[in-house]
Amino acid sequence: MSIKLFFVLNVNLSVIKVDKIKKAHDRIMPYIHRTPVLRNGSLNKLCSAELYFKCENFQKAGSFKIRGATNAVMLLDDNCIKHGVVTVSSGNHGAALAMAVQLRDGTTNVIMPKNTPKIKVENVARYSGKIIWCEATLQSREKTLKKVIRESGLTLVHPYNDINVISGQGTVAKEFLEEIPELDIIVCPVSGGGLLSGTLIFSKEMSSKICVYGAEPEKANDAYRSLQKGTIQSNKKTNTICDGLRAQIGELCFPIIKEHVDEIITVSEKEIVKSMLMIWERMKIIVEPSCAITLAAILKRKEEIRGKKVGLILSGGNVDLTQLPWMISDFNLETL
Amino acid sequence: MSIKLFFVLNVNLSVIKVDKIKKAHDRIMPYIHRTPVLRNGSLNKLCSAELYFKCENFQKAGSFKIRGATNAVMLLDDNCIKHGVVTVSSGNHGAALAMAVQLRDGTTNVIMPKNTPKIKVENVARYSGKIIWCEATLQSREKTLKKVIRESGLTLVHPYNDINVISGQGTVAKEFLEEIPELDIIVCPVSGGGLLSGTLIFSKEMSSKICVYGAEPEKANDAYRSLQKGTIQSNKKTNTICDGLRAQIGELCFPIIKEHVDEIITVSEKEIVKSMLMIWERMKIIVEPSCAITLAAILKRKEEIRGKKVGLILSGGNVDLTQLPWMISDFNLETL
Repeated sequence: MSIKLFFVLNVNLSVIKVDKIKKAHDRIMPYIHRTPVLRNGSLNKLCSAELYFKCENFQKAGSFKIRGATNAVMLLDDNCIKHGVVTVSSGNHGAALAMAVQLRDGTTNVIMPKNTPKIKVENVARYSGKIIWCEATLQSREKTLKKVIRESGLTLVHPYNDINVISGQGTVAKEFLEEIPELDIIVCPVSGGGLLSGTLIFSKEMSSKICVYGAEPEKANDAYRSLQKGTIQSNKKTNTICDGLRAQIGELCFPIIKEHVDEIITVSEKEIVKSMLMIWERMKIIVEPSCAITLAAILKRKEEIRGKKVGLILSGGNVDLTQLPWMISDFNLETL
Repeated sequence: MSIKLFFVLNVNLSVIKVDKIKKAHDRIMPYIHRTPVLRNGSLNKLCSAELYFKCENFQKAGSFKIRGATNAVMLLDDNCIKHGVVTVSSGNHGAALAMAVQLRDGTTNVIMPKNTPKIKVENVARYSGKIIWCEATLQSREKTLKKVIRESGLTLVHPYNDINVISGQGTVAKEFLEEIPELDIIVCPVSGGGLLSGTLIFSKEMSSKICVYGAEPEKANDAYRSLQKGTIQSNKKTNTICDGLRAQIGELCFPIIKEHVDEIITVSEKEIVKSMLMIWERMKIIVEPSCAITLAAILKRKEEIRGKKVGLILSGGNVDLTQLPWMISDFNLETL
């Protein structure tokens, strides 16, 4: 019985969302950047492939999150906006939501773990988001969120367990494939799974041949283990350098990912930092560890990508410039 | 008598070079990137102006220098290439020259001051350039250069005192004005003066109304003082963080700059570092202090640029990522 229900849910979600992604794009286009797709000769050579980088690090508020947040906020009714919205966020979704809510003159509350990088805290504050601190655990986040909603009646805009957010994130793949329709592979970071779900729905519908990989840190590999087990698995620890990839895969996202993803590739912290440095040095652009992970993932699949057109989603660029990972003793340059 | 000669020299140089810049562009186009022009809403707001950033930090070998070097190298005869070329360089021209000479299977020798950042030394080595060390003074550079040429018979491709190099650097302004013809102002870093000379010749010919500023560190303000005095003045010290702007203005460049430039704006080290951090944080791109100086310069002229279209040449992106200026105690974030 549960299997049947599950299947029906999947099909509905998929059918609805392709259309929803297109509508979301029309809705959010006036408020977002159409980010450029960059290439790099030296990285192409290294991979013996044609790499295309979709630069959401240049996006408003510094990450793709503005897409999903804006789509969700534009669909809220006036009363919700007037009363205020709330979310849980490691930073980028919080800032994006605050920015989107400002467009409608509302107020935003962001529940953030205490170990959030300073730049991401400042970004939330820049758009007048109010920060509510919690401990750096899933349990503390959930508990704080429930308490705030119960006591204040604020409207939740979840960072990934929200159909309108997922639809908004899917617009990255829409723009990417509009610009480079012949992509053989798309690689996308995975955390809660909103971006990966949107990417899967759009790109698998557009092309039956396209291969979509999720890239995940070994140190927060809940998506990888969830796919192995067939049910959502928790992370016991999430002490990865990828501060944007510490969330647990969402209940709405898991079935979509389970049905469509070709593989979740997990990578080590060292591989992530090395790839981040490569992108900074060779492409001269600032990206977060959380999206440098896409390059790290394909560097582990060099044989499979040889000669192919590979799209990498560079999801964000909000980095604390005084705390660069290669300046931490664990990752000094000699060991990379 | 000398004044008359001077005037004749200027006119000839100008007339020749506009044409030479166009020919240089045709010549080098297959070997360089046509770099993008980026914009940034937050910096526009800060300046109450429309800023356009010509991103030569994304150029091959990481700076605009590949333009002049390639143009000069393509015009050398086979014997010169076979025997080898030599230059003096704080880094970017050396790497660019080595890359250009590789296109013709020649060898490059680069005389570099001992205080050159590691990344710039590595860039020269990457293209098989041979490094010859000198002291970090103009005298040592010149002496070493003369000795090497006398003893080896290598052909000099000077970083700025070379008409073909200046013509190549002028192609930045050509591309910039092709993309944004309505620019009111162009701001360009000044060191030896090759880029500024090429920019002046091209843009002043294209538009009688355009205003061109040079941006120079207070700590290596020889161009500013030379214009005041009317003759080339030396820098006694060049301990600026802008490692690309420590050269003395060239004899070929000075008369061009003297005739055409609207103003040389000098800025403090602190203003340079602050602007560099602004570009990194807001635009998510990696630029050198030597070109962040253009933003620092216009931030000192906010009244004059209000409402105008301002083009900033971001000349390079070769930065030692382990030695970022805001991590040095002189420029800690609290004091910026």
